[in-house]
Amino acid sequence: MAFTYHRRIHFSDTDAAGVVFFANVCSMCHEAYEASLIASGISLREFFNNSSCAIPIVESQSKFFYPLRCGDRVQISLTPQLISLTEFSIVYHLALMAEGAEADSSQPKRAAWVLTRHVAIEPTQRRRCPVPSNVLEWIDQWGEGPSEALTDENY
Amino acid sequence: MAFTYHRRIHFSDTDAAGVVFFANVCSMCHEAYEASLIASGISLREFFNNSSCAIPIVESQSKFFYPLRCGDRVQISLTPQLISLTEFSIVYHLALMAEGAEADSSQPKRAAWVLTRHVAIEPTQRRRCPVPSNVLEWIDQWGEGPSEALTDENY
Amino acid sequence: MAFTYHRRIHFSDTDAAGVVFFANVCSMCHEAYEASLIASGISLREFFNNSSCAIPIVESQSKFFYPLRCGDRVQISLTPQLISLTEFSIVYHLALMAEGAEADSSQPKRAAWVLTRHVAIEPTQRRRCPVPSNVLEWIDQWGEGPSEALTDENY
Amino acid sequence: MAFTYHRRIHFSDTDAAGVVFFANVCSMCHEAYEASLIASGISLREFFNNSSCAIPIVESQSKFFYPLRCGDRVQISLTPQLISLTEFSIVYHLALMAEGAEADSSQPKRAAWVLTRHVAIEPTQRRRCPVPSNVLEWIDQWGEGPSEALTDENY
Repeated sequence: MAFTYHRRIHFSDTDAAGVVFFANVCSMCHEAYEASLIASGISLREFFNNSSCAIPIVESQSKFFYPLRCGDRVQISLTPQLISLTEFSIVYHLALMAEGAEADSSQPKRAAWVLTRHVAIEPTQRRRCPVPSNVLEWIDQWGEGPSEALTDENY
Repeated sequence: MAFTYHRRIHFSDTDAAGVVFFANVCSMCHEAYEASLIASGISLREFFNNSSCAIPIVESQSKFFYPLRCGDRVQISLTPQLISLTEFSIVYHLALMAEGAEADSSQPKRAAWVLTRHVAIEPTQRRRCPVPSNVLEWIDQWGEGPSEALTDENY
Repeated sequence: MAFTYHRRIHFSDTDAAGVVFFANVCSMCHEAYEASLIASGISLREFFNNSSCAIPIVESQSKFFYPLRCGDRVQISLTPQLISLTEFSIVYHLALMAEGAEADSSQPKRAAWVLTRHVAIEPTQRRRCPVPSNVLEWIDQWGEGPSEALTDENY
Repeated sequence: MAFTYHRRIHFSDTDAAGVVFFANVCSMCHEAYEASLIASGISLREFFNNSSCAIPIVESQSKFFYPLRCGDRVQISLTPQLISLTEFSIVYHLALMAEGAEADSSQPKRAAWVLTRHVAIEPTQRRRCPVPSNVLEWIDQWGEGPSEALTDENY
């Protein structure tokens, strides 16, 4: 059910150590997030300019297992999960995909793991508001779902 | 014969004016350059770590005609041209592609024009060297070709 | 009279070739532009959110003379020039500064040259409008000035 | 004892929501890390090209409390801590500094918190190696120190 995004590592993603700069792994995950929203029929322009509800990232975590280099083919699997009526998280798994002669025999190599946490807010007052219905549908489409009925004490 | 690259505008490409930050247009063109090298069978890892010949960009020019926003679908057409035995240029045309109901009736909208000039050098001495043969083949494949036989007085 | 900005090369500016990625040179010049606006008492937040006049970059040119590496100390000299009542350009010279034992005896090394061209527009209609008065004062303060009285046939 | 780094928010740090893109907060923290190394007499060029010991980031965490906008003045306080003979972490606190008339009366506003974890490895084999002595001195200079004698079972 996870959304899958494929991406080459660009030269501009790398640093003088020859591998992807750590912060750019987070940018790549945000690209996958945007692609999954488009795949659910959400207009990015409306999503990121919504005057009644903004959904900023309030937390992120990353673990880096294997260095990625220019030209590497990466698969990003993305799974959103609703945390409360006003909040959701996304888990991303990045895998380095084998190519050419190795493509058949090799397994993808675990490269990184990223988590982002997102809170829906009403922009002028910066107070929590419910996650909009089209975003709930996006979570339903690609996510695992909560294990039980949600209540939101923060809301 | 030009190489064509398709790309969504990512949120990280934009700035607080709501449109793509001007320098990021150049980064996008470099992505198209990398994709064209891969399409010609060139390994990016070997290309950018070639100890006998590096090909730095020595000049770039950009013109911006129309602002690009997050989620926009862009087509980049790339045409390399050999300038001398040690030097080539690439011209990029960026067009904003219509979507949905407008896709059939609308023409792509000219968004930007970029030129980069690249010089082949031997890395340790930083002196000019001939453009490698696999890069000449890449120019042949996607380029317009020089209008006459080349001589290189700089070489 | 030029405005001068000093800047270390950050690790995130570099790419897998070990030197600053070409597009990032343009980003650095924009930082110098922002610093010069602040030095003239202009609020960046108001400048980049001005609802009656936006000043997008419509063209840029760059020449790269010497590669810059992580930790290098760079001086950017910036000179704006009014082109017409609705338009100005900025020229940037980037120099690599010597350090430590070499600081006294060595001359700065020319690293790059950049030009940007900016057009004042009224944002909703995207039609040209006069360069605002506080920006004219900024041009007076750091610029060379036009060699003769301006007329603007485009306006 | 923490190292302190001051930085303006650049236009290129922001995104179309008008605030700093979340991943760019991590890049800013890495700038502070580089500045602290220079302040301890460490050459960045040698540090990031050390053929006997590389120190990649293996994990990062970020919390975002307050949005940062173009032109904002930010203070980053950095505190390294040795975790084992082969590993250290850095904690960064980002605060938005008041300016002008508010500078005297206003407290800095907590904007973000970032943690990075770094492991020393021997680059060819990618096996753990001891944190180099000049990096231990840097930790001593800016850090809080471990609360007890270190042993390293991983080493």
